[in-house]
Amino acid sequence: MRLNQAGELTLLKKLKDSFRSSESSVIVGIGDDAAVIAPQKQQLLVTTDMMNEGVHFDLSFTSAFQLGFKLVSVNVSDIFAMAGTPKYLFLNISMNDTDTTKFFDELYEGIACAMKVYGISLLGGDLTGALNDMLLSATVIGTTEKAVTRKGALVGDRIYVTGTLGDSACGLELLKRMMPEDKEAVRASRDLSSAQPLICRHLMPLAREASKIAPVANAMIDISDGLFIDLSRICDESGKGAKIYLDKLPLSEDLKKACGFLKLDALRIATTGGEDYELLFTAPANADMAAISATCIGEITEEARIVVDTSGRETELKAEGYQHFGA
Amino acid sequence: MRLNQAGELTLLKKLKDSFRSSESSVIVGIGDDAAVIAPQKQQLLVTTDMMNEGVHFDLSFTSAFQLGFKLVSVNVSDIFAMAGTPKYLFLNISMNDTDTTKFFDELYEGIACAMKVYGISLLGGDLTGALNDMLLSATVIGTTEKAVTRKGALVGDRIYVTGTLGDSACGLELLKRMMPEDKEAVRASRDLSSAQPLICRHLMPLAREASKIAPVANAMIDISDGLFIDLSRICDESGKGAKIYLDKLPLSEDLKKACGFLKLDALRIATTGGEDYELLFTAPANADMAAISATCIGEITEEARIVVDTSGRETELKAEGYQHFGA
Repeated sequence: MRLNQAGELTLLKKLKDSFRSSESSVIVGIGDDAAVIAPQKQQLLVTTDMMNEGVHFDLSFTSAFQLGFKLVSVNVSDIFAMAGTPKYLFLNISMNDTDTTKFFDELYEGIACAMKVYGISLLGGDLTGALNDMLLSATVIGTTEKAVTRKGALVGDRIYVTGTLGDSACGLELLKRMMPEDKEAVRASRDLSSAQPLICRHLMPLAREASKIAPVANAMIDISDGLFIDLSRICDESGKGAKIYLDKLPLSEDLKKACGFLKLDALRIATTGGEDYELLFTAPANADMAAISATCIGEITEEARIVVDTSGRETELKAEGYQHFGA
Repeated sequence: MRLNQAGELTLLKKLKDSFRSSESSVIVGIGDDAAVIAPQKQQLLVTTDMMNEGVHFDLSFTSAFQLGFKLVSVNVSDIFAMAGTPKYLFLNISMNDTDTTKFFDELYEGIACAMKVYGISLLGGDLTGALNDMLLSATVIGTTEKAVTRKGALVGDRIYVTGTLGDSACGLELLKRMMPEDKEAVRASRDLSSAQPLICRHLMPLAREASKIAPVANAMIDISDGLFIDLSRICDESGKGAKIYLDKLPLSEDLKKACGFLKLDALRIATTGGEDYELLFTAPANADMAAISATCIGEITEEARIVVDTSGRETELKAEGYQHFGA
């Protein structure tokens, strides 16, 4: 069934019925002019992010389920990066009249799955028609006892990153080369067992929870635009420099294999590729890191921003990564 | 200058510098992973709405300034409709690489103007590229002592509406007919002094503040999709009926004149035309309405939904109005 046969009101009713909130802090959930919340904690966190067809996603790569899941993850990642607990979700979905209700159903199954994973409730949103491309945006509200911003990095802090870097960007590169037009690459990619986890990482990222990191972190950000650009943001906001060591960067075996196959520079992808959704944070050198799974990749300095390459050569760290409206 | 020459970071910095918040409840404003707020009042209101090029707006009709102003108004209107005070704004803006920085500047002047009018602060958002159409969405957070929802209408309540109905929909109709293709209509419309206020009403609506209405209202909604559809929402949520009288509907002289000229049914536009952004509310028959500027258009009943036309004939009220993905 096409969306223009289902009608907005039917779709909204469906959303409303599926997503009734049982949170005691929610006084009015989805379905009024605005949601009404009475949060228990003092500090609220609010973030919003959009995903546009043709810019952030390609419907020939992603399934509707993955897309819905990712929309929630990228927003939740921002709440985690502030040391918060995500609580409430608001959605804006614009779809073409000729999109199918099957697609819509799968999209919202992906959203519902992510909501379960992160323990959040849908409290409102807007569903409208789009002339051409599909457009998704979400706002997530969370709570925190004490937010960790990008501002607090101190000289001597160690710089840490969770997980591995570059997997998502490499996954996207694999998807691009696997387009039906390039039959040889498709065949080759299918033989590459490393491809699948990288592609999954790109299409359905899982945001990193930060409750163990929060007590030790002086500054934190999630890596969405690439390590270099996001580390530069911490430096800018904290008014500090940084020195990072390329040989310390956590790279997955899958990334190394795929980069060999694709003839790509794994370190370049790990430093400038976007959408890792890992946490980048700084903590004092004497912080207790026993319970935290993260890799130390460098330290905060007075002013200079330096990259030490694998042969020990020092170059200037530039805020290179994915930037919209780039030249 | 085109946006692809300016770059996202430059544009973001500009937004950040222009919109520093001086609100004491804002702990971290625009420019981190999420905004941090410590609101003083117990209840928070959250709403989000999107506006898509080609669906919600036409760049051959609207200026960038008007568009920015309207984006804020439509969201603030939802906060007012819950008896709230708007406080914080979050923006999502997607523009094409080839859009100009002049357009962006004017858009954000319109946003800034509306922020001053409504007394709100910009705390965050997302700025991305769009493949085709321009896409705007906003989230507004407000506070309230006591929210007025769509649910509380009681049998015997009078139904009130602020301002006049149908002006915005008629303004849009005028704009459509004034397209350069139809030169005769353009000439005729220019002679019609009523056209300008109706067009303004469509392109740059002002949301209605509800502080005087809130103490007496049992149920409230803002009219965004048309009187019939939004009144039906109050009936649905309250589990009640309604009887409204077409001869009581507040119509502006401009609307009557323009409808005469355009050969349109003014009452049909007033009941099914969207984007009035007036407040529709119910209040007890004995409520003190002295300080409130609103028109009584009917009353809440047990179950039946009835429209009494100008000759006294009763017909069923149907939830007709603008609906996305309509058949």
